[in-house]
Amino acid sequence: MAAPVDLAEKLGKFSEHWTPKVVADFNGHDIMVVKVNGAFVWHAHPDTDDFFLVLKGRLTIKLRDASGTESAVTLGPGQLYIVPKGVEHCPVAEEETHLLIIEPAGTPNTGDPATAAVKTRL
Amino acid sequence: MAAPVDLAEKLGKFSEHWTPKVVADFNGHDIMVVKVNGAFVWHAHPDTDDFFLVLKGRLTIKLRDASGTESAVTLGPGQLYIVPKGVEHCPVAEEETHLLIIEPAGTPNTGDPATAAVKTRL
Repeated sequence: MAAPVDLAEKLGKFSEHWTPKVVADFNGHDIMVVKVNGAFVWHAHPDTDDFFLVLKGRLTIKLRDASGTESAVTLGPGQLYIVPKGVEHCPVAEEETHLLIIEPAGTPNTGDPATAAVKTRL
Repeated sequence: MAAPVDLAEKLGKFSEHWTPKVVADFNGHDIMVVKVNGAFVWHAHPDTDDFFLVLKGRLTIKLRDASGTESAVTLGPGQLYIVPKGVEHCPVAEEETHLLIIEPAGTPNTGDPATAAVKTRL
C-alpha cells in the first residue's frame, strides 16, 4: 500500500548528527534526512551536485572556488542550495538543524569512502 | 555570489496552476515549484521516477498499477512520495497546494510533449 514519507516523523527516530538516513529512492539517488550541529569537514564530490534543503534551523555552507577564494551561503527553513559538483564546501550549523539532502546512491558524505558515514535506511 | 533559493519567495512570483517553475538544477534534473488545485491528468513517465514534496496544502496522488487496480496516497506539508517510473498516476488537490517537484530536465509534466506545460525558470 502506498504511504507518504513524513519527514518530521523520520527525523523523530534518531538524534545523532551528521549521519544521513535514507528515506526514499529517486532515479538512483538517495533521498535523505540528516540532523546537523557544529562544523562538518571541507570536502567536494567530483561527480555529483549536492542538494541541501533546510527543514528546521539554519545552515551555512562555506564554499571555496578553484582559486581558493572562500564565500558562504546561509539557508533557513524552506531555502535550498545546490553545491555544484567539484566545488569544495563545508556545512556549518550553529544550532540543531534538520536537512533534506539528495545524493546519488552510495555517494560518501565526506567525499571519501574512508571517512564517510554509513547511510542507514529509516 | 552564492544565494539560497527561497521556495516561498519563488512561489510568491506566480499564481497559475499546474505550470512548474524551475528554481535550481541538480544532476541533470530540474528542481521545480508548482501550485496545483483540482485534478491533473492521468499519465506516466516511462523513464523517470516522479518526486513530490508538499510545502503547503494537501495532495492526493491516485495510482494505477499494471493490473489496473487503483490506490491513492495523500500528502500534507513535509510529506513526500516518489511515484516509480512507469506507474500511472493522477495528482489531485482539493485546495490550493504548493509542491516541490523534481524531474530530469526536459521531462514533460503530462508524460507527453504535446500536452506538457512549458517549464519556465524563476
